[in-house]
Amino acid sequence: MASIKDIAKKAGVSVTAVSYALNGSKKVSEATRARIMAIAEELEYTPNLVGRSLQKQQTNIVAVFLTDYVGSFYGRLLAGIKEKLEVEGYELIVCSGSKAHAFLPQKLVDGAIILDSTFSGKELLKYADAGHKLVVLDRELEHENISNILVDNEFGATAAIEELIENNVDKIIVIEGPKSSFSSKIRRDVAANTAAAHQIEFEVLPGDYTLNAGIEHSEYIYQQTKNKKVGVFCLNDNMALGLYLGFKDYKDFVIGEDIQIIGFDATLEGQLAYPPLSTIYFSQSEWGAMAAEALLSMFDGQACEHRTLATRLLLGGSTQNSI
Amino acid sequence: MASIKDIAKKAGVSVTAVSYALNGSKKVSEATRARIMAIAEELEYTPNLVGRSLQKQQTNIVAVFLTDYVGSFYGRLLAGIKEKLEVEGYELIVCSGSKAHAFLPQKLVDGAIILDSTFSGKELLKYADAGHKLVVLDRELEHENISNILVDNEFGATAAIEELIENNVDKIIVIEGPKSSFSSKIRRDVAANTAAAHQIEFEVLPGDYTLNAGIEHSEYIYQQTKNKKVGVFCLNDNMALGLYLGFKDYKDFVIGEDIQIIGFDATLEGQLAYPPLSTIYFSQSEWGAMAAEALLSMFDGQACEHRTLATRLLLGGSTQNSI
Repeated sequence: MASIKDIAKKAGVSVTAVSYALNGSKKVSEATRARIMAIAEELEYTPNLVGRSLQKQQTNIVAVFLTDYVGSFYGRLLAGIKEKLEVEGYELIVCSGSKAHAFLPQKLVDGAIILDSTFSGKELLKYADAGHKLVVLDRELEHENISNILVDNEFGATAAIEELIENNVDKIIVIEGPKSSFSSKIRRDVAANTAAAHQIEFEVLPGDYTLNAGIEHSEYIYQQTKNKKVGVFCLNDNMALGLYLGFKDYKDFVIGEDIQIIGFDATLEGQLAYPPLSTIYFSQSEWGAMAAEALLSMFDGQACEHRTLATRLLLGGSTQNSI
Repeated sequence: MASIKDIAKKAGVSVTAVSYALNGSKKVSEATRARIMAIAEELEYTPNLVGRSLQKQQTNIVAVFLTDYVGSFYGRLLAGIKEKLEVEGYELIVCSGSKAHAFLPQKLVDGAIILDSTFSGKELLKYADAGHKLVVLDRELEHENISNILVDNEFGATAAIEELIENNVDKIIVIEGPKSSFSSKIRRDVAANTAAAHQIEFEVLPGDYTLNAGIEHSEYIYQQTKNKKVGVFCLNDNMALGLYLGFKDYKDFVIGEDIQIIGFDATLEGQLAYPPLSTIYFSQSEWGAMAAEALLSMFDGQACEHRTLATRLLLGGSTQNSI
């Protein structure tokens, strides 16, 4: 098999230039890169990832671990991560499942971003102890090799409940996320405390962040609205849109009038829905970019950092405007 | 480091049972699997992927190569792939970028599903020659190790143009996808031929499958509607929704009356938009499932297969109903 040296010789450039070109570095011009890539293809060059891991301890690949792909949420998060990584010559693989955990100890990736409740804290701390750089989006872990980049769930959940209370609801229903979800637990607990502080009737319904969870609860919630003014805080937009779909069965039942709904995530689907969904906004692509920055700065030898991404209430037509 | 034998000894089961459990096979009960996984964690067992590659030539990981993640489209495609693979004990990694191409020759994955125009046909044929099993979603390649699983773009594009013509438009505008996209090229060419057969004015505007492409063309298209009855066929829903956003600037300009729009993909965003988007429907999760099935059957020693997923016109409120 052709080596980097063979490519360099044929292209009449240094081995370093070939390495830059193959790694997508901006240190060689696009024209040079194109020429080198053409020669690499001609010589049927294949980078030896395992070999590179052993020699340089670097693959320029970052793993993102997710449990789910469904919804535009993850797409925007991944796009934010990808964009930041590409500028620095890194690329991204997205893993979901336990076999790929081994990519870390095997050094097939240089570091990882975790939004995956199937990792135990213990496992992550073990990787961090072994020197792997990690960014966690779904828990708080104290370790010099782990940055925590979180969303301000507390502010968002408080704002949602206070908005419903200002709109004079009699009862607040929360549809929560999966039991294993860190963000769902915080949002639910903060919502419960805020409702309790206002002494308002409060109920939690189980959910799993899918459309179906919303659809399944729509009949029960519809029945509740017959003698109460109900506000629903869905812990993500997806479940709120499930309610929209479920409520289509009830003629003359108007979202924003007969029921008030607030979601969380400010997805495009929610903004395009009719009426546009009131929700807690944060930028998923910014979240991804912050995570990638934190990882890249640890690669550069900087200390880990803990940051919280701001959230805010975005009002649509699914809540009443309090005057 | 603990081996599979250590785990088997401690759990009092066979090495085979441990292997089944670690690979997520259904051949051991969920209770046994949980017990084995707990012991594996206790012993800090880490599967040696590279070692496994050399010994068994199998990692039980499948790579999906994509160029983009944005939009719910990819989420549903990946969910369809993931579900089929999991039943057979395989897991999924999603790769975007050229470095990860090396996972194939390095045998870190058992096969790949390709929806990624950065792969040349030559490169894919080289991998297939080396014995790698591939499924391509974005091109036609004849090789015993490559299955082609395509969407019926021809039927969809014909149905879209014929619907606009039945609704008596004077002019058809197509917003196309990226120049490198196989599906965009077919949809555009079929649309052009269908329009030509009906001798109707026809124009193609450049696009890249993003919301922005729709937003950017919205003013030009709005101007066109002043003296013509215009129908727009956007080669994906995303760009059609970009038009929705752009047209919000024009008061009293009603989608479905002042302009007719048809998308492609039948995304959730399009169905929740107001008015619901007329579009070409196909099930992304079914597409993913078909791709996974084709790959799994090649793993089992079956021949490659070429299949085409049906599409159909789904009418929403963004076109007039012809009576």
